[in-house]
Amino acid sequence: MQNIGEGEFDRATSVAAGGSAEIHPGWDIAGNANGGYLVAMAARHMAAMCGRPHPVSVTAHFLAPGTAGPVQVTADVLKAGRRFATVSGSIRRAGRVLLQALGTFGDLDGLAGGFRHVTGAPPELPPQAECLSQRSAPSEAPALLGRLDVSLRPGDVGFATRDRSGEAEVAGYFGFADGRPVDPLALLLVCDAFPPAVFNLAVPVGWVPTVEYTVHVRGVPAPGPLRCVFRSRFVQNGCLDEDGEVWDSRDQLVAQSRQIGLLPQGAS
Amino acid sequence: MQNIGEGEFDRATSVAAGGSAEIHPGWDIAGNANGGYLVAMAARHMAAMCGRPHPVSVTAHFLAPGTAGPVQVTADVLKAGRRFATVSGSIRRAGRVLLQALGTFGDLDGLAGGFRHVTGAPPELPPQAECLSQRSAPSEAPALLGRLDVSLRPGDVGFATRDRSGEAEVAGYFGFADGRPVDPLALLLVCDAFPPAVFNLAVPVGWVPTVEYTVHVRGVPAPGPLRCVFRSRFVQNGCLDEDGEVWDSRDQLVAQSRQIGLLPQGAS
Repeated sequence: MQNIGEGEFDRATSVAAGGSAEIHPGWDIAGNANGGYLVAMAARHMAAMCGRPHPVSVTAHFLAPGTAGPVQVTADVLKAGRRFATVSGSIRRAGRVLLQALGTFGDLDGLAGGFRHVTGAPPELPPQAECLSQRSAPSEAPALLGRLDVSLRPGDVGFATRDRSGEAEVAGYFGFADGRPVDPLALLLVCDAFPPAVFNLAVPVGWVPTVEYTVHVRGVPAPGPLRCVFRSRFVQNGCLDEDGEVWDSRDQLVAQSRQIGLLPQGAS
Repeated sequence: MQNIGEGEFDRATSVAAGGSAEIHPGWDIAGNANGGYLVAMAARHMAAMCGRPHPVSVTAHFLAPGTAGPVQVTADVLKAGRRFATVSGSIRRAGRVLLQALGTFGDLDGLAGGFRHVTGAPPELPPQAECLSQRSAPSEAPALLGRLDVSLRPGDVGFATRDRSGEAEVAGYFGFADGRPVDPLALLLVCDAFPPAVFNLAVPVGWVPTVEYTVHVRGVPAPGPLRCVFRSRFVQNGCLDEDGEVWDSRDQLVAQSRQIGLLPQGAS
């Protein structure tokens, strides 16, 4: 059980004060670093440079795949307000932009409480032991899955067995394999750590290039596994959306995400 | 009936090749330009600078209110790919950033068709004549409403009459007052042109500062009025979300939006 600041995730997303960083191996899918992992790396530096503890809203566009190796992370503080700071950031390698981000940072503890109107509930999941751990997935599974403790709702893994549900939805539990708690920074990874929901439709199981990815952090997670659900509602004109919700053990929505991606090659 | 390129909207969002532009009066709410209007202005320049016809996904953060008068619009093309270009942009005045944007631009006509899986439908609305035109709103209504032909579903205007629905939802029709058709650029305005859905909850009807606003353009609108619906599902910890859907006359989803804002002062 690792503490925040001491986990694999912390080492793999660390950025030196000058912006030097390293994309670590083992956070990838077929050699390309997971997008959410890269966003967390960029946001860690953006938060540090504006001196705010938490990401509140972070958007990233993915311009080139990130293979393991050294990178440069930039952060340009556009505004430092009383409540929030707005920061533009990027991850670059040899002058080429791999990821461009824009985000708002602040102190989520200072926002907590107040008027509340929530229409929504955590996804209904069987107990974690009855879900399918992705750590025991076949050896050709993405390296990323070994770092995480993700387990999927049984009906949602049909894409692996060719018995697809026909519903563009994937739900399950999230934790880190080393037990590090999930903090607001890690939520930027969580929302991109599940198999694409469209895999349960009649589309090829292949690379889904993300065009844009936004995570809004809506609260600081309570300890314990997170319940997550991802849905694609509008697959049309070559593009798909995927909306995510992440709920903590106290039934609080702690993150909501949306990404727009391209359909895998061969979908027709 | 104005053509695209010749409407009030086109004049009010025009940007000279060097980036000089002017926030026009009459697109404001109490003197501050509508956020969606500003995003459209920035995106017009961003699209021009990368030479792509349409916004595909645009995110904006609002850093300072935009009063009428001259501004400078910037556009930095980060990547020009085969299908898409990624552009960072801003609106500035006297060196101060009013709006920072990040977007992907491309040719939506080239993406049209292909695999389709849509779970959702246009909002159910009575005929437009039975909705409440916002152009005939009282004289203290925002100037913006005079430029638009927005009419709201009768049950959703309770915030104006103190008979609120208790549901954080607002739906209605959108068009331009001068009859200019709605193109993909204008969709960036459409998604921010309705009263906040939270006005139908027990919160003060006041300024809802937007922190982040993203619009994904999912298709080129067919001619005719658009049907729009906006919902806030998660109002908590001082912040609200608002998700929007815009449907055209052929029942195609043409835009989906999400914004994160702050609850009006006095909400408790």
